[in-house]
Amino acid sequence: MIQDVFIIGATGGVGKTLVKQIFEKGDTDPNLHKNPTRVIGLASSSSFAHDPYGLSERKRDEFYSRSCGSNYSLNDLLKAVSKEGRDSNLSFVDVTSVGQEMVDFHRSVINETPYGIVTANKNPLTMVNYDDFVELARHHKRYGFRCSVMAGANAIDEIKDLVDLGDPVRSIRGCFSGTLGYICSQLQTQMPFSEIVREARELGYTEPHPAEDLSGRDVAKKLLILARTAGVQVDMDQIPLIPLIPQEFLEEEDVDVFMDGLKPLDREFLSRKEELEANGKVIRYPAELSLCGATPYMRVGPTIESKDSPLGMLAGRANKIVIQTDTHDSDTPCIIEAPGAGLEVTAQNVRRDLMRQIRERTVSYRNGNGSA
Amino acid sequence: MIQDVFIIGATGGVGKTLVKQIFEKGDTDPNLHKNPTRVIGLASSSSFAHDPYGLSERKRDEFYSRSCGSNYSLNDLLKAVSKEGRDSNLSFVDVTSVGQEMVDFHRSVINETPYGIVTANKNPLTMVNYDDFVELARHHKRYGFRCSVMAGANAIDEIKDLVDLGDPVRSIRGCFSGTLGYICSQLQTQMPFSEIVREARELGYTEPHPAEDLSGRDVAKKLLILARTAGVQVDMDQIPLIPLIPQEFLEEEDVDVFMDGLKPLDREFLSRKEELEANGKVIRYPAELSLCGATPYMRVGPTIESKDSPLGMLAGRANKIVIQTDTHDSDTPCIIEAPGAGLEVTAQNVRRDLMRQIRERTVSYRNGNGSA
Repeated sequence: MIQDVFIIGATGGVGKTLVKQIFEKGDTDPNLHKNPTRVIGLASSSSFAHDPYGLSERKRDEFYSRSCGSNYSLNDLLKAVSKEGRDSNLSFVDVTSVGQEMVDFHRSVINETPYGIVTANKNPLTMVNYDDFVELARHHKRYGFRCSVMAGANAIDEIKDLVDLGDPVRSIRGCFSGTLGYICSQLQTQMPFSEIVREARELGYTEPHPAEDLSGRDVAKKLLILARTAGVQVDMDQIPLIPLIPQEFLEEEDVDVFMDGLKPLDREFLSRKEELEANGKVIRYPAELSLCGATPYMRVGPTIESKDSPLGMLAGRANKIVIQTDTHDSDTPCIIEAPGAGLEVTAQNVRRDLMRQIRERTVSYRNGNGSA
Repeated sequence: MIQDVFIIGATGGVGKTLVKQIFEKGDTDPNLHKNPTRVIGLASSSSFAHDPYGLSERKRDEFYSRSCGSNYSLNDLLKAVSKEGRDSNLSFVDVTSVGQEMVDFHRSVINETPYGIVTANKNPLTMVNYDDFVELARHHKRYGFRCSVMAGANAIDEIKDLVDLGDPVRSIRGCFSGTLGYICSQLQTQMPFSEIVREARELGYTEPHPAEDLSGRDVAKKLLILARTAGVQVDMDQIPLIPLIPQEFLEEEDVDVFMDGLKPLDREFLSRKEELEANGKVIRYPAELSLCGATPYMRVGPTIESKDSPLGMLAGRANKIVIQTDTHDSDTPCIIEAPGAGLEVTAQNVRRDLMRQIRERTVSYRNGNGSA
């Protein structure tokens, strides 16, 4: 059976990389996959192209070359697809950062249709309350959200499995932000803080406005998703959040003014670094959830770590997560270290979630020498 | 739909723990799981009990209390189940260490029936040739073998997914033996080698004959499974294998004589340890596969590692695997650290593979406070 895919956010960085990977990595090849992929729709913020028999190359190119299009709502899109009366072999992909409209869309798809969703967008998982989160996340095969937290690791599925196995999570600790990981690593060099942030932004590591990263909001959203996946009934406002830099710097909305405004912090970070270095310490920006006490303990904010500790040794954009349960206790926790997101890694893991939604998946061994 | 399970090896350590977990962790509870588990069969090496409607508590107890039973062949068992004309909602579990007879059984089930298998037994994956391995392993949902290597980690599924994503594995390196990990860790203390092995055996960490661990054969089997899972066409005799102790010690078949015979090695290991310690080094027993050259490079044997290197820092029975691919390159490899096997961890991950075989799985969120 063919696996149909409708990609929303197809003109963004992850969306374009995803389309490229689907066509170049063999996903559409019926000789490689028992359930080959067929792209039936592409949508940007302003328009969408859709063909139930698969978008022709011409239609794809047309969509990508169109500079602007007619406006549409996600509801129009769902109606267009629904009236084909198709079965459940369709999955939507959300690689946007759309808020409320997308929240409603995810809920409509899961509750009112037989289709699946794969999302890298954190909003539909964090803007809703716990019960609505569970309504989405409990559908193991239909709702894939591994790319919302540490796309390169298997943290979400690992936690879902532990819940189902009756081995409840006792604590989660880790560095979930490739951006803040990169900044903290660079703080160990002589480079001034404002230059580090500028470079991270130029390399495309930060959100469009770096305040979203430096405030810790992005990390807090990820911790909320992990906590809820572990079955902990919490909301965003229950997460104590300490930004990497003082609050007054974060309130500047104009990005250029914001970037220039970081210079006064250079001297402070540099003298801090020298003091820490002398003691074998480094700055990291971890998030933590502990369920050992009577109420869930959560914290997102900078910490001082030994240079040779698990988090202190993290380099560059690598992410790390340490999960403890009854079976995986403090002596032998489950630890996953993986590349922090990036276009290629995120797109690859969107495809991994799509594979999860395939019925009767077989592994496509190709020629037996390991190079596919 | 009910998920029926037939456990072969039910009177062994993992088998007993598995049955206990299935009944105590809620797997059979239709209020928790859309597809609750039902145990329809239990088999030991000498007899089996089977009821298509689920074994009653009385029949289970009877089976466990029976000191011996009538002999049977795995083929009898398959015939007994097959004549019920049931659908594909049955999974066999193989937690034995049976050789050729089990090889044939696995192949019969996968090739001639619609049922699934979950195995912790390495023989059906290592005693066959590459093509027969692929015939089993390509059935992602029907053939679960995560527990054959690093049961507590997600290494097998991770590699299967990478194959399917067209992101071929370039290298795998790691410590896959909890037993040898424990022994190498203890070698950093003042304890004599022969005492360490004796303790490991008494704690139930070693195979019945510790030569199976100390020879590296067990690790080589695991490397073979990982290599083949990555699509590399290799056989057991292509893996260079350097035992932890000289070959002549390993040839003693009587376990008690073997254990006493280890004493002459105590002095050598102790002086080795002092020399290494002075240089900040430790002994580890990793396995390695590299596909960077023209032909696959493989090696299983002891190495000297820096105390603060990723493998040098491994403590106790923890396992670690480092996987590199095109996307996960040497700067940002995928690293998983997890408890080396043990009855509870292995049984838990057999259940995880069983969950994978469920149709329409939903995650069983229970009460929203994280404690299931």
